[in-house]
Amino acid sequence: MHLTIAQINPTIGDLSGNTTKILHAIQQAKQQGAKLVLFPELAVTGYPPEDFLLLPQFLTDTSHALDSIIAAATDIAVVVGVVRSNSIPGEKPLCNSAAIIENGQLIGFQDKMLLPTYDVFDERRFFEPAHNTKLWTIAGQQVGITICEDIWQHSELVKYSNYLCDPVKELSRLSPQLVLNLSASPFSLTQQAKRLATCQNAAKTLSCPLILCNQVGGNDSLIFDGHSLFIAGDGTLIDCAKEFEEDVLSIDTTKKIASKQLPTDPDKSLYNALVLGIRDYFHKSGFHKACLGLSGGIDSAVVACLAAAALGKENVLGVLMPSRYSSSGSITDALQLAQVLGIKTTEISIEGPFKSYLELLPPHFEGRPSDITEENMQARIRGMILMALSNKLGYIVLSTGNKSELAMGYSTLYGDMCGGLGPIFDVTKQQVYALARWINRRQVIIPQNTIDKPPSAELRPNQKDSDSLPDYAILDNVLVDYLEKMHVPSVIAADHGYPIELVEKLISHIHKNEFKRRQAPPGLRVSEKAFSVGRRFPIVQHYY
Amino acid sequence: MHLTIAQINPTIGDLSGNTTKILHAIQQAKQQGAKLVLFPELAVTGYPPEDFLLLPQFLTDTSHALDSIIAAATDIAVVVGVVRSNSIPGEKPLCNSAAIIENGQLIGFQDKMLLPTYDVFDERRFFEPAHNTKLWTIAGQQVGITICEDIWQHSELVKYSNYLCDPVKELSRLSPQLVLNLSASPFSLTQQAKRLATCQNAAKTLSCPLILCNQVGGNDSLIFDGHSLFIAGDGTLIDCAKEFEEDVLSIDTTKKIASKQLPTDPDKSLYNALVLGIRDYFHKSGFHKACLGLSGGIDSAVVACLAAAALGKENVLGVLMPSRYSSSGSITDALQLAQVLGIKTTEISIEGPFKSYLELLPPHFEGRPSDITEENMQARIRGMILMALSNKLGYIVLSTGNKSELAMGYSTLYGDMCGGLGPIFDVTKQQVYALARWINRRQVIIPQNTIDKPPSAELRPNQKDSDSLPDYAILDNVLVDYLEKMHVPSVIAADHGYPIELVEKLISHIHKNEFKRRQAPPGLRVSEKAFSVGRRFPIVQHYY
Repeated sequence: MHLTIAQINPTIGDLSGNTTKILHAIQQAKQQGAKLVLFPELAVTGYPPEDFLLLPQFLTDTSHALDSIIAAATDIAVVVGVVRSNSIPGEKPLCNSAAIIENGQLIGFQDKMLLPTYDVFDERRFFEPAHNTKLWTIAGQQVGITICEDIWQHSELVKYSNYLCDPVKELSRLSPQLVLNLSASPFSLTQQAKRLATCQNAAKTLSCPLILCNQVGGNDSLIFDGHSLFIAGDGTLIDCAKEFEEDVLSIDTTKKIASKQLPTDPDKSLYNALVLGIRDYFHKSGFHKACLGLSGGIDSAVVACLAAAALGKENVLGVLMPSRYSSSGSITDALQLAQVLGIKTTEISIEGPFKSYLELLPPHFEGRPSDITEENMQARIRGMILMALSNKLGYIVLSTGNKSELAMGYSTLYGDMCGGLGPIFDVTKQQVYALARWINRRQVIIPQNTIDKPPSAELRPNQKDSDSLPDYAILDNVLVDYLEKMHVPSVIAADHGYPIELVEKLISHIHKNEFKRRQAPPGLRVSEKAFSVGRRFPIVQHYY
Repeated sequence: MHLTIAQINPTIGDLSGNTTKILHAIQQAKQQGAKLVLFPELAVTGYPPEDFLLLPQFLTDTSHALDSIIAAATDIAVVVGVVRSNSIPGEKPLCNSAAIIENGQLIGFQDKMLLPTYDVFDERRFFEPAHNTKLWTIAGQQVGITICEDIWQHSELVKYSNYLCDPVKELSRLSPQLVLNLSASPFSLTQQAKRLATCQNAAKTLSCPLILCNQVGGNDSLIFDGHSLFIAGDGTLIDCAKEFEEDVLSIDTTKKIASKQLPTDPDKSLYNALVLGIRDYFHKSGFHKACLGLSGGIDSAVVACLAAAALGKENVLGVLMPSRYSSSGSITDALQLAQVLGIKTTEISIEGPFKSYLELLPPHFEGRPSDITEENMQARIRGMILMALSNKLGYIVLSTGNKSELAMGYSTLYGDMCGGLGPIFDVTKQQVYALARWINRRQVIIPQNTIDKPPSAELRPNQKDSDSLPDYAILDNVLVDYLEKMHVPSVIAADHGYPIELVEKLISHIHKNEFKRRQAPPGLRVSEKAFSVGRRFPIVQHYY
């Protein structure tokens, strides 16, 4: 069968805009000669619609949007993700569903059977699961329809959840000719390989082609990579849609010869994911310009490069805000980066406001000596300056902190944590260096000095990150093992040969800084466990 | 039967501290001659433990804590809320459970049947529900055991969820002599009456006494009011434990004569809830001192009164931060309040830093006129001053914004939104006035001028809130109807006779300011729908 995978980039709640995209893709599919066009999970509302699903008006409007899609589906079959009402008393009033449409008629709904309720997913908050599945006759073929998580139980790659039923096994007993999967499967660095393995396992069990259509685009913290898959019944990857952009891909489901491979460069994937996340955060909220503090350090350099790629270099302003403690390199390195990158800069010294606070506040400090208070002041003056530029000129401020800093609370609330978005909040310091190397792979964009010099916040004379933090390589290993693998401290210590006291101290630090992260701007999620998104810990607690 | 309700105030994750409280209450119950002592839901870990439940070490430690409780339960039966492991493949690996202990032996676990997954509750994220219930022989009686939500389905008072089974009906078929309920039922202004009605309905159906033991205390945003209930089999409220404090209440389950009534003063309940929420947020995190900006306005006045009641007047510092736009009343009203309340004050003019920014920044403003940027600057200088006092002297800053402001984004991110806690973030402006009247019920504590003058942020000459916002009475009605009742705009407009355009504009404003609230400190929840806690909307969206 000729089938079109409509890998679209919906905006949450943009019912008319998303419907327009869907109608346009239906037209393209017809022009491609497709019998069937497949859309992502909840394509009409965008994923995740969160508590919009609790608003009656939103559901009514979604239902009207579906009506207009049905009306357009003449001379083609359409399978599109949509929320539907469920009227069975005692059950949740909604289902996460695939609408099956043919010849301008709604044939029926296949509801999602497995509802992820872990990490970033809250589907049991809204939906009732389907209790069984069946085959649908679409374009003359016997087709099984699954939604995202439905095919994951079979491969046992989901860490935090499992289910009593396995839709893949149930469908395999019905001998389908084709199985579809509507997905909104968010990107993480390990997700693409897992998704491919999951689809390959499922296709082999089903002994028929499996077509997965994934959402693409950024919605708040979540980035969807697209990369929709066509797997043959023997598990071979035959074709896939583009990564990190929309694609309307025409395939022949009888094709058996592979033409695509999984991308293999994690730094490139990470870079592209972050660029997409920034671009959609800005453009979907109607903003086009970013400003950020350029310190001459590696974090702000990488964020500047990502922003320039996402928004265009003409839309990025680097703000140099030297202080009495800034090294000479902080200005020259920042200016060198900006020049090569082609972004605008402006320089605003923080000395004036800093002096005014140092005159104003010490009489209220009960004679206590200079300490972290004065360091935080400098970071907060910089936050004030960036926010003033934002307010006056319409920039969104990018916060340049990385995951290692956020973990340790090595950042100033209302200071360097100011911003509309934290592009590298889920990127460890080690990964920041890897990104810098990748950015510099063809020509030096980030100055070598920025990469080579020891990291420093430059908030007091000769300060270095290593005064307050352990080696970033150690910290990042503990972070990954504790946050993503959920290993116990003793195992982490033993696996790496670290003192158990050090591991426990670092974990304790992570939890004690929950209060700071709770007030952080949203960060883009690229790991299996990002701070704040999908990670829910109390602020006040006595365990750590 | 003589039974003790052990209404304790656990701290999240304080396994040893909570166990000490439990062991102490077991001793008290023995001294009271009780055959059985009943504890709240998840008393060992505190509720809600959130993602601590995903950490293997946490579960091991919880299991050890339970062992020590079992060992202490000699000569008495104990029913205590605890998490237990569930090893059935394909199910969630945990149950929210009641451990039933007698004569130093664990008799068994009754798992929770109905798992709330709506609003502030995420129980399906962690737990597998019990599929049935039974009677337990405890102290020679046939006892049914339920956990919180288990009894709510029966009264149909839960708005966002319902279930296919009804544990109350199932138990009633077994003719229990007594039914227990272990609860962690958070306070809201409507919750106490609903909880009583729920228990009365259940007791009548069960035709036996129903004893509910509720957690008390604040855990982050949630406030648990205690107020544990003893209801006779005819639905009469016989006795109840204290509100907003720990209580170890001895009851005779055969008693049939009422001695208690439901509290009826919502302003008093609101006040006491907020005081408890502030106190526990501070004390459970090891802090004792609060500072806040005292503007002479009603919001900061009410927060100062709440803080003084929660922490002691000697632990509250009011910071007066006048500007060139401050009215003369702003200082005199603030000082008068502080004097009557007995809190310390300090005065720090923001003029110096404001001048330094007004010299520094305008050259970077591309010739644009003065606007909200300069207003935000003043709020952010005040935030800087409060945070400097916090950093240097160990205060937690209280943010003084109210729910009506948060809804409209009528507040400055990194300015007046700075703080560790927002005590009145879930209190509408109308309720702020009601609290002020209640605080002043016996003597004038909050100056009459503070109550009478039109609200103003005083960030430009002659500014009034009413320049930017509709009448607070209108705004607050729309807020309650939209947020709590989830009414559609047309119904809200019709119910109150407001123009539909106004209602839609206000709702749109609520959604457009999601980005500010996402970076707000935690606020205490006192309504059925608080911002941020239990309300999950995307920042980037096109619906509103």
